Amino acid sequence: MPALSQSDLVASMFSTPDMQGVFSARACLQGMLDFESALARAQAEAGVVPAAVVPHIDACCKAELIDAEALCAAAGPAGNLAIPLVRQLTALVTKQDAEAGKFVHWGATSQDAIDTGMLLQLRQALDLIRRDLAGLLDALAVLCEHHRDTPQAGRTWLQQALPVTFGLKVAGWMDGLLRRQARLDQVSQTAMVVQFGGAAGTLASLGDAGLTVTEALARQLRLGVADIPWHTQRDRLCEVACELGMLVGSLGKMARDISLAMQTEVAELAEPVATGRGGSSAMPHKRNPVGCAIALTCAARMPGLVSTMLAGMVQEHERALGGWQAEWDTVPQIAGLAAAATHQLRQVAEGLTVDTARMQTNLHLTDGLIMAEAVTIALGRDLGRLAAHKLVEQACGVAVAERRNLRDVLVDSLAADARLAQSLSSPELDRLFNPSSYLGVAGQFVDRVLQTHRRQKTERKD
Amino acid sequence: MPALSQSDLVASMFSTPDMQGVFSARACLQGMLDFESALARAQAEAGVVPAAVVPHIDACCKAELIDAEALCAAAGPAGNLAIPLVRQLTALVTKQDAEAGKFVHWGATSQDAIDTGMLLQLRQALDLIRRDLAGLLDALAVLCEHHRDTPQAGRTWLQQALPVTFGLKVAGWMDGLLRRQARLDQVSQTAMVVQFGGAAGTLASLGDAGLTVTEALARQLRLGVADIPWHTQRDRLCEVACELGMLVGSLGKMARDISLAMQTEVAELAEPVATGRGGSSAMPHKRNPVGCAIALTCAARMPGLVSTMLAGMVQEHERALGGWQAEWDTVPQIAGLAAAATHQLRQVAEGLTVDTARMQTNLHLTDGLIMAEAVTIALGRDLGRLAAHKLVEQACGVAVAERRNLRDVLVDSLAADARLAQSLSSPELDRLFNPSSYLGVAGQFVDRVLQTHRRQKTERKD
Amino acid sequence: MPALSQSDLVASMFSTPDMQGVFSARACLQGMLDFESALARAQAEAGVVPAAVVPHIDACCKAELIDAEALCAAAGPAGNLAIPLVRQLTALVTKQDAEAGKFVHWGATSQDAIDTGMLLQLRQALDLIRRDLAGLLDALAVLCEHHRDTPQAGRTWLQQALPVTFGLKVAGWMDGLLRRQARLDQVSQTAMVVQFGGAAGTLASLGDAGLTVTEALARQLRLGVADIPWHTQRDRLCEVACELGMLVGSLGKMARDISLAMQTEVAELAEPVATGRGGSSAMPHKRNPVGCAIALTCAARMPGLVSTMLAGMVQEHERALGGWQAEWDTVPQIAGLAAAATHQLRQVAEGLTVDTARMQTNLHLTDGLIMAEAVTIALGRDLGRLAAHKLVEQACGVAVAERRNLRDVLVDSLAADARLAQSLSSPELDRLFNPSSYLGVAGQFVDRVLQTHRRQKTERKD
Amino acid sequence: MPALSQSDLVASMFSTPDMQGVFSARACLQGMLDFESALARAQAEAGVVPAAVVPHIDACCKAELIDAEALCAAAGPAGNLAIPLVRQLTALVTKQDAEAGKFVHWGATSQDAIDTGMLLQLRQALDLIRRDLAGLLDALAVLCEHHRDTPQAGRTWLQQALPVTFGLKVAGWMDGLLRRQARLDQVSQTAMVVQFGGAAGTLASLGDAGLTVTEALARQLRLGVADIPWHTQRDRLCEVACELGMLVGSLGKMARDISLAMQTEVAELAEPVATGRGGSSAMPHKRNPVGCAIALTCAARMPGLVSTMLAGMVQEHERALGGWQAEWDTVPQIAGLAAAATHQLRQVAEGLTVDTARMQTNLHLTDGLIMAEAVTIALGRDLGRLAAHKLVEQACGVAVAERRNLRDVLVDSLAADARLAQSLSSPELDRLFNPSSYLGVAGQFVDRVLQTHRRQKTERKD
Repeated sequence: MPALSQSDLVASMFSTPDMQGVFSARACLQGMLDFESALARAQAEAGVVPAAVVPHIDACCKAELIDAEALCAAAGPAGNLAIPLVRQLTALVTKQDAEAGKFVHWGATSQDAIDTGMLLQLRQALDLIRRDLAGLLDALAVLCEHHRDTPQAGRTWLQQALPVTFGLKVAGWMDGLLRRQARLDQVSQTAMVVQFGGAAGTLASLGDAGLTVTEALARQLRLGVADIPWHTQRDRLCEVACELGMLVGSLGKMARDISLAMQTEVAELAEPVATGRGGSSAMPHKRNPVGCAIALTCAARMPGLVSTMLAGMVQEHERALGGWQAEWDTVPQIAGLAAAATHQLRQVAEGLTVDTARMQTNLHLTDGLIMAEAVTIALGRDLGRLAAHKLVEQACGVAVAERRNLRDVLVDSLAADARLAQSLSSPELDRLFNPSSYLGVAGQFVDRVLQTHRRQKTERKD
Repeated sequence: MPALSQSDLVASMFSTPDMQGVFSARACLQGMLDFESALARAQAEAGVVPAAVVPHIDACCKAELIDAEALCAAAGPAGNLAIPLVRQLTALVTKQDAEAGKFVHWGATSQDAIDTGMLLQLRQALDLIRRDLAGLLDALAVLCEHHRDTPQAGRTWLQQALPVTFGLKVAGWMDGLLRRQARLDQVSQTAMVVQFGGAAGTLASLGDAGLTVTEALARQLRLGVADIPWHTQRDRLCEVACELGMLVGSLGKMARDISLAMQTEVAELAEPVATGRGGSSAMPHKRNPVGCAIALTCAARMPGLVSTMLAGMVQEHERALGGWQAEWDTVPQIAGLAAAATHQLRQVAEGLTVDTARMQTNLHLTDGLIMAEAVTIALGRDLGRLAAHKLVEQACGVAVAERRNLRDVLVDSLAADARLAQSLSSPELDRLFNPSSYLGVAGQFVDRVLQTHRRQKTERKD
Repeated sequence: MPALSQSDLVASMFSTPDMQGVFSARACLQGMLDFESALARAQAEAGVVPAAVVPHIDACCKAELIDAEALCAAAGPAGNLAIPLVRQLTALVTKQDAEAGKFVHWGATSQDAIDTGMLLQLRQALDLIRRDLAGLLDALAVLCEHHRDTPQAGRTWLQQALPVTFGLKVAGWMDGLLRRQARLDQVSQTAMVVQFGGAAGTLASLGDAGLTVTEALARQLRLGVADIPWHTQRDRLCEVACELGMLVGSLGKMARDISLAMQTEVAELAEPVATGRGGSSAMPHKRNPVGCAIALTCAARMPGLVSTMLAGMVQEHERALGGWQAEWDTVPQIAGLAAAATHQLRQVAEGLTVDTARMQTNLHLTDGLIMAEAVTIALGRDLGRLAAHKLVEQACGVAVAERRNLRDVLVDSLAADARLAQSLSSPELDRLFNPSSYLGVAGQFVDRVLQTHRRQKTERKD
Repeated sequence: MPALSQSDLVASMFSTPDMQGVFSARACLQGMLDFESALARAQAEAGVVPAAVVPHIDACCKAELIDAEALCAAAGPAGNLAIPLVRQLTALVTKQDAEAGKFVHWGATSQDAIDTGMLLQLRQALDLIRRDLAGLLDALAVLCEHHRDTPQAGRTWLQQALPVTFGLKVAGWMDGLLRRQARLDQVSQTAMVVQFGGAAGTLASLGDAGLTVTEALARQLRLGVADIPWHTQRDRLCEVACELGMLVGSLGKMARDISLAMQTEVAELAEPVATGRGGSSAMPHKRNPVGCAIALTCAARMPGLVSTMLAGMVQEHERALGGWQAEWDTVPQIAGLAAAATHQLRQVAEGLTVDTARMQTNLHLTDGLIMAEAVTIALGRDLGRLAAHKLVEQACGVAVAERRNLRDVLVDSLAADARLAQSLSSPELDRLFNPSSYLGVAGQFVDRVLQTHRRQKTERKD
């Protein structure tokens, strides 16, 4: 029995307990055993094996009956976990009933058990992820609606650019996540097709009963039936991996935004406070963005793991040498990281502290520079876009150099230049320097995203 | 003007001329210019800019009018290609008509032009890829149908395992590619949404006309309208990248199989012969699998490039610092490699030489070992799967050690063991050693894939 | 306490038991505890903490005293494993001696303990890897020497090209591995520098005793002292990761070659035979290249993991948000995969079966085509390289089309063309078609590599 | 002739003109031609080819004589650029002198020319990178020295943690870069070994003159001689790729820090100002961190590209199918991105604006919280580290909740608790809240790094 690994400790931080259960050693063995018992039932149904063997095989397909230590010792030389598992299972069944022992793993190959078992685990994982993703979206929808019109400094290239709304920012996060939700719903269906092809994908071991057994087997496990076994066509799994990779990418973007907004100097957002959360072993005042950190950690690890899945697609003939085996530890990591990031950001979103006063304060940090585009557009109609851009650019330079408010500099310019004064009256200038008056259609964008959320939610219920 | 690069030479080998056209410097500039002219038209339509400016802007939105050398010199300090492009365009338009010059790039931001222009290029790229993919699938369907029942050695872990059919192998290739075709059709729609948000995604520069202009702009360019600008939500592009990554993964698998089957010692398949194709500068006898080599090269480069796209998703606030800019050279590479791999394997498939005689010969290379599973299954019904496995394993050992045919070794075993003889008669044994009799439902699997191909083809026409 | 994970089962196949021990949960905790006890000793030595606290802290720094379940529960919210570990340790020490409890983790930060502990583990991992690498190189040296002059078909683009020797192929494998050995020796020194900077890298908590304590601490742990704490400068770790990545790349190349040479149709090499090794759950005759498969699996996973390390280097200010945390599960995987691949291929090399007769047979598979370059060179002196190339290319075409031996085709050409006959006599032609006569300086290349191996071995002993 | 590509436009922003020259199409061809002319000279010297051919071959080895359009057209089917190049070269030479034409590319294989040519380009690239890296380090050393004692808020997890110095931050950047400089100096030597093995690595085409010619060839090109040809052992190139990957990782960290410090709300640092630099097409006030953006873009792209190199190491037999070819476009990108990032950050460092007043202001943003660790340490000696941590943590909570200065809260605590007052006098408390008094050995760390810089500089000159 292998000892608990460092990886398990780390996973306890990054992953959720539920997800750790899904990819525990026990669950891994049980997945394969579920395949073996369903296979016996399906084959009995199709008349391929005697019906009498089923209860004996069923009774032994329990992970707790397996000697994991012996299994691990034999798996290395064997090249996979299924060979020693089937060997142990056969011994267990034979002890119960010699006849039943004859038909364990009948007509199947190791990869049939391994792949199908892994899909059964992955289905649970996707359910957990989708549950947390739905919760996260609900929490974001509340924030989005509430802050539909809350002005906040928009930042491009990490510089204050012009006003946006906090609702718009949240709507942006939702936008990407809503697409992932829709796609994850899809691939949770399309990827879930039973693996059953026998030694080289012909099911020759079952004579002409191959498809009948496949269909019965799929029914037993509530999986779909593919056109053809997929021993070396791994794109369905890769599709799941890519989707989870993009999910974590979108979550990473959200975590990046929140952690930037949590900086001491910005302080517009804060992760929920809880005892033991976000502390430091050295600094008693710290409230670290631990949820965001986990999401960003997942986002840092995901691209490499997804690239491993893609690289593994180039498999040899009827069973691969490396590409398949590379999935065994990679798929659970991909699912675990996606679950962790989703779960963490759901918690963050559900308890996010939003400091609208600070948002307001920050909007005024630049002494009006943040409204430069507004003035440019107002002047541009007469002067032309580029000429107005140049003029305001110069005024910004003066404002910065002389530490004056941009509005005051422009008032001087208007006073000095009659043509300019004609283009832009002083009251208009005042209006232009009110951030709330320069939010464009941000509210409508928010509404569109919220509407998509509602529509998707309704459709998913149906 | 930058000089032609080594990369262009390499691309001339890996990519197709059509695709090189799509991602030429000229096409890149034209993409952005198409955005600018469509924007003027859309804004005139919405009454945001005077209708009179449109013909002047239109007339200048031609890549050949741009001084690429000056543009390149200015782009580095500016941080993107659009800033100096818009500057040049404004000067050109202003020269034609001062009033029109005022409204160039009105209310837009650089990223609006860059992203939309890139989508316009990507749409063409996807069209080319999908065209070649359809042709490849057609060619494979012919091979698949023709060789539905052609026996070939199935190989797992690069060892002969048991017989399959060449049709089954081809059906496997088709299976993955058909899913990519369906998905590429989808993302060719869903990813094609205009980028238009102005400086920080609010379209504040257009007052309340933002959505009206967006819709007109999208119509002009035959693009969709998103719920919200996607300046820092890059998942749609990533989805295209992932799909192309999986496409190339599936093509890499096909190329791996063909190149393995082209080995001097296997010689079952050969790439089409043509003058100047697959030669060697040193060895006059060489016929290298150059098509497969290109596909495998693409498959080697794709995972890293896709991982760059995923990593780039973690973008900052309203405009990213690195993640967005990383796409500029990555997206064209991803599209170019996908196009190259598809195009090359289409050519390979259309001219593939299949040596069925050699397939037959190779099936007999192991002196019967390849039929070991067949015997195991036949014996297993009486002896039990595992006991039969053990018995045949021993017989295989004898056959190898004594360099005898497995069938002969088993005949001796039958003669020596009455119980065994009861389980397996000699005529049955003969039948078991005929590869063609042990193909299971391979033919049905082939039929199912071909049917999906036909259905998908019909649906795509509609 | 987290349950044993699927990852642990997979690791039991891919990694070695020794390496699993190095990266067990217990070893991870012990690494940090070793830091804490060494810190107390170093600080007592420097007079920073009372000497009396040392035995109490020492006595409690034992992983088996830690409640892993409680630790895991607290680690998630805390954001790292060290915070709850230090808390438990402080409670344990305080129970023994209240005064000692005051000085647990004195002046340190979590990252000091985590990074240093990880280095202590990594040092053991590198020792294991280097031991197996030395053994592998010794085994290869024996093969290389023994087969210095054994002719084998050289293969380029997976096509037979011209004769090489098996010794040359083995020397190629050694060549890359020797460079890795030298570099791993180096980085095993340079990367092993203690992490100690306190909360933000200034060691302000220790007043002006920072460097004194650092030096004492490093001495305690037999680690080096860096110029400056490296909390967010991770290149030393990346260097180890890159070296291990390249090691596995070189091993993957070796495994690719061996597995290709083990193909049923090539059959020149075979992995060592052992009970339970390389079998199949379906096919009793299979002897799968399981060692190579593991090495290739590691090679498939490594590039993605190394890319994660590189991506993680872009860290924020004095402690990172994601980039650092991404290492925690990645470094153990990188070390584990490198250890597995090295260990497996050492076993393969030590027991490799080499079928020189089959190599000889395969050299004659092409009916002389493999000697095409030899003839070209012989003719080239008179005809010119390119003209000779063209002529022999045509002869190859004829040989293939008419299924004749290339030599016979050329004899006809000589007979028909006096000028040609002058360039190449018939006895010369005979000599040219002997593979053993066309091995160039392969033997000298082998000798050079073996000499480097001997020199490096001597230097490493000193 | 392929058209200028979008990639060339992007490269004009990301790469330097010098580096674009190194990897221009022309330079690529010239690299191979330099190999061909050096080969002729070396072979004449060794008496393998007539001395008279040398001037004719030399005269034609000029990239401008090559018809790039024809070359590109032929390269695809041929599978590499060298085959059509050698064909054109042979025609050119033959036109000059029929005898000389016979000996073009004598005894060599395409990969010999391609790999060696690429090394010649890479040598130039490394020279450029090392030149800019040295300049960058010099600029950083000036900053580091000047700001050795400039207090700045240290930030962990993007939260203000405790004071550091700006000199310490710069020293951290230098620390990693100094290691890269040392290693790049090394690999610039060790990687530069001529590729020359002939068709399958035996140099059989040269009889027993193989090593003599190799040595002469290497001398001609000022390259080293390897123990053995390295057609499928690519670790030396990978070593360069990994080093450049780590260089860009370290540069990315520096760029991340600078861009975070340039945020509107932080404003401690600014990139140098120049006309046309860092503007926005929409917002006239923007001064974007364009240098940092380019470095971060390079850092986003590098991990994927390096992973491609590592994945490509798994090559087949004597010439690879995909792994080698994947390098052709990847190596230039890796070198180009490294050059761009180094060049940009050199410019940034040479002109960096440091606002020490703002650093001072920011240190006081937290109303004393940033000194929490200082107080903890002071109290810890009496109370114990953890108890003091808890006490100060509570005081921090009060300070935040009541918006008071932490010092004032603690003064109240001292007043209320006699035992506490004993541990910490009021004047001590005052001292503790002076950031400059809590910088530990930051200055010594700075000195150590500057010393390493000076030592390395001296050694490099020698």
